Amino acid sequence: MIVLGIDPGTAVTGYGVVKGDRSLPPRLIECGVIRTRPRDTLPQRLKEIHAGVVELIERHRPDAMSIEDVFYARNVRTTIVLGHARGVILLAGEQSGVEIFEYPPAEIKKAIVGTGGATKQQVAFMVARLLRLKSAPEPSDAADGVAAALSHVMAARLPKISDEIPLFNDRR
Amino acid sequence: MIVLGIDPGTAVTGYGVVKGDRSLPPRLIECGVIRTRPRDTLPQRLKEIHAGVVELIERHRPDAMSIEDVFYARNVRTTIVLGHARGVILLAGEQSGVEIFEYPPAEIKKAIVGTGGATKQQVAFMVARLLRLKSAPEPSDAADGVAAALSHVMAARLPKISDEIPLFNDRR
Repeated sequence: MIVLGIDPGTAVTGYGVVKGDRSLPPRLIECGVIRTRPRDTLPQRLKEIHAGVVELIERHRPDAMSIEDVFYARNVRTTIVLGHARGVILLAGEQSGVEIFEYPPAEIKKAIVGTGGATKQQVAFMVARLLRLKSAPEPSDAADGVAAALSHVMAARLPKISDEIPLFNDRR
Repeated sequence: MIVLGIDPGTAVTGYGVVKGDRSLPPRLIECGVIRTRPRDTLPQRLKEIHAGVVELIERHRPDAMSIEDVFYARNVRTTIVLGHARGVILLAGEQSGVEIFEYPPAEIKKAIVGTGGATKQQVAFMVARLLRLKSAPEPSDAADGVAAALSHVMAARLPKISDEIPLFNDRR
C-alpha cells in the first residue's frame, strides 16, 4: 500500500509518500513541500497547490491520501484560508480517484507517538525512528505530511477483529 | 463585459451571469444554482462544484468572476467548510484564466442597495429592479450570485477620474 500524506497550507504544503503493508515495516519513498510565492494571489497559489498534488498522485499512484482535518481555529481568517488549500487538495484526490482519509491532528499524533498531546518535535522524532531515518524530515511541514501518511499506514496495519479472531468458534 | 457572479456554498452554490457596459443597462443572461447531494462526501461535493463552475465559464466565457469574500464566522466549522468550496471555485476561475474579483458581503449590498446593512430581501428586490425582472431570482442563493455579478458590473460602470477628467489642463 502506498499512501500520500498531506499537511495543507497556502504558503507551504508538506507531503510524504510512505509504502507499507502488514508484513514489512513502513518505508519512506519521498517527502517534501509545495511552496507558493507570497506575492501571488490566493487563486494563483491554489492553482500551484492543486497542480502539485495532481503531479504527486500521477507520479506515485498512491492507494490512499491521508490528510489532516481542521476542526479548531486560533485565528479564524487563517483557518478559512487554510480551508481553501484543503479544498483544492481534496479536489485533486477526488479527481484522481484516490481514496481520501481525513484524520484530526490529535489522532495522527496518537498513532505516531501514542498520545494526542505530543509536540511537533516528538512527532518528528518518532517519524524518523519508525521509518529508520538518520534524522527527521525537513522542513517540519514535510515531516507533518509524512506523519499523516504514516499514521494511515499504521492504522491499516492493525489487524481487524473480523479478519484475525473468529468471534464464534463454530466447528460442529 | 460579461461577469460570472458566485455565492459559494458546499450544499448550494448560487450563480448569475450578467452582461453590462457603460452605455447599456445591465442584462441578466442566466442564473441558477449548483446543488450537491447531502449524502456525498466533501471531496465529491467539491468535485461537483468545481466541474459546475468550469462548465459555466466554458459556456459563457466571462471577462470576470465576482465572488463574495468571507471574513467573519458565526459557526467556525461551517465557515471552514465554506472555505473549501471557495477554494475550488477560485481554482476553476484561475485555471480558466478569468480575472477574479472578491468583494466583502457588505460591499455587494452597498453597491446594489446603497447600504452595507441591507437585508437579503432588499438585495433581491433591487437585483430584480436593476435588471428589470418581474420577480427576484429564485432560490435566494441564485439571487446572491446575481448580486455579486451585478455589483462588479456597476463598479466597473463608474467612470474613473483618470478617464473622464483631465487633472491638468495642459494646453500651451
